[in-house]
Amino acid sequence: MTTARAYAATSATDPLVPTTIERREVGPHDVLIDIAYAGICHSDIHTVRGEWGPIAYPQVVGHEIVGTVAEIGSEVTKHQVGDRVGVGCMVNSCRECENCKAGMENYCLNGNIGTYASKDVDGTITQGGYATSVVVNDDFVLRVPESISYEAAAPLLCAGITTYSPLSHWNAGPGKRVAVVGMGGLGHMGVKIAVAMGAEVTVLSQTLSKQEDGLRFGAKDYYATSDESTFEKLANTFDLIINTVSAPIDLQQYLSLLRLDGTMVSVGAPPEALPISVFALMGNRRSYAASGIGSIGETQEMLDFCAEHGIAPEVELIEAKDINTAYERVLKSDVRYRFVIDTATI
Amino acid sequence: MTTARAYAATSATDPLVPTTIERREVGPHDVLIDIAYAGICHSDIHTVRGEWGPIAYPQVVGHEIVGTVAEIGSEVTKHQVGDRVGVGCMVNSCRECENCKAGMENYCLNGNIGTYASKDVDGTITQGGYATSVVVNDDFVLRVPESISYEAAAPLLCAGITTYSPLSHWNAGPGKRVAVVGMGGLGHMGVKIAVAMGAEVTVLSQTLSKQEDGLRFGAKDYYATSDESTFEKLANTFDLIINTVSAPIDLQQYLSLLRLDGTMVSVGAPPEALPISVFALMGNRRSYAASGIGSIGETQEMLDFCAEHGIAPEVELIEAKDINTAYERVLKSDVRYRFVIDTATI
Repeated sequence: MTTARAYAATSATDPLVPTTIERREVGPHDVLIDIAYAGICHSDIHTVRGEWGPIAYPQVVGHEIVGTVAEIGSEVTKHQVGDRVGVGCMVNSCRECENCKAGMENYCLNGNIGTYASKDVDGTITQGGYATSVVVNDDFVLRVPESISYEAAAPLLCAGITTYSPLSHWNAGPGKRVAVVGMGGLGHMGVKIAVAMGAEVTVLSQTLSKQEDGLRFGAKDYYATSDESTFEKLANTFDLIINTVSAPIDLQQYLSLLRLDGTMVSVGAPPEALPISVFALMGNRRSYAASGIGSIGETQEMLDFCAEHGIAPEVELIEAKDINTAYERVLKSDVRYRFVIDTATI
Repeated sequence: MTTARAYAATSATDPLVPTTIERREVGPHDVLIDIAYAGICHSDIHTVRGEWGPIAYPQVVGHEIVGTVAEIGSEVTKHQVGDRVGVGCMVNSCRECENCKAGMENYCLNGNIGTYASKDVDGTITQGGYATSVVVNDDFVLRVPESISYEAAAPLLCAGITTYSPLSHWNAGPGKRVAVVGMGGLGHMGVKIAVAMGAEVTVLSQTLSKQEDGLRFGAKDYYATSDESTFEKLANTFDLIINTVSAPIDLQQYLSLLRLDGTMVSVGAPPEALPISVFALMGNRRSYAASGIGSIGETQEMLDFCAEHGIAPEVELIEAKDINTAYERVLKSDVRYRFVIDTATI
């Protein structure tokens, strides 16, 4: 067992506090990682506050984890002590269902094991990355290319892959018009990745407050969705819309922006069902889809793609003592564009 | 001008009655067709009863039209007098929008001209196929292969193409598991076409009353959706679901039947928006789409495909005087599987 310092939630309402947790013995297929940085994802907040269902406390969250391999199990061959590595939203899956066998463990039909607040194979509840170390099965450990700094790599493990996967699957690239809805942690990565893929990118954000950033990230256009005329102007325009906004939206308005055979993909999920009109889909043979993070294979591909194209998220480094303040700022969308915790300060 | 005998609606509530209508002079690009048979589509009933919005009366409906070319305009080269031809749901489109230019006039961005109850280029309201003749622009006239009888060809022009187009677009074929929801006029064609394409086909119908027919049409399985256990049994099974039911359904139930990257396509449209949960889509990266009839190119391809594979709809031939009774039977789903009017009886 390894003792790690960590920041944990002790209830749905209290602030996160420093604590220590035990990490399991390094098994034959395990990797012990000394965590250097952990990103803060909105999901972390939903989880600790019980907004996605009741959880057991204390709970450590964080699924954008980057660090250095400190120890490997006897059977581990793909990672070595000293390697730069990362861990995203999953730490295991059933490996037996047709999706796992197809290398799409993010869609594991038996439910993959989340990096935190999930029941692990040994029956314990997984504890996430706001900590100084973690033990993870070697198949779920990613290689972080040398050219990506540790702190920049962290948000790629969730915000990066969550936008990369649908952009790649629905063939964002030269000749394709892609809209990214929302300019938060996910949205700003979506813009950078879609631009690097060669697509013509438009940002659809509630206001124009981040327009300068959007254009700097390579977007060709930037429109405010609070302006009704945006929807008239852009009718029948996009091949692909990546919706990073978890709040309920008027699907019909956004679907009307898709041209023939266009697809709108939600990567955030409002808890309530939204009304959808078949007529809005039937014009232009449109599709509405959703995408959940990405497979381990795709995540590695994304990291390599970002290294190759020199893409990195915009991060705001914080000390562990500022996590609770950061949470409040995330809720106000007051972050450009991802908080990353320096775990040395835990 | 040509005078045609026809059956027309004179109000939203009165029965259809015999009448005569004038067809326009045959212009340089027009084809005059002596109609032999016209199918009855549920859309005809919605239209004459004003359920899709107010219309002008008298109105002749019918958009599953088959007959023989009686006269051609001076510039017509692709059709000759005596040819076996058909007309479906459209008789013209703008020809200028990007969808028309891409040969997808069924998705004309300026609205294609429907075979009935649409404003034609000359400002008149189009009158449909429950008539002895019709004049149609040559680009919207289809060739009916010799091996398909006139009466069997009629329902292909709407029920056939409406199911063929999404089956073809979403790659129904060998190795693909396809479900067809509903075993009416559209559904029974969907089954036959999907089977001919080589897919493994399952029918999902409210009851098992048409099971024998479904299996005879080539379906491998047939399940009743009134039985809740159907949805558990078939979870994560289908690559493609074609929903031919226009009544509101629980989208979440049906989406749960899609396996990884599966798509559910509605070809009928309930007037009200239906609730859709992003979570139901995110599992298995599912898509929900809709498809509207098919292009002229696809319709010709479908007719040729049906000829090649010996596929024909099951029809119940009626005389014109029985149209009103047929309407009542359509509303009770009491038809196997499409009424076709012998227009010689008008």
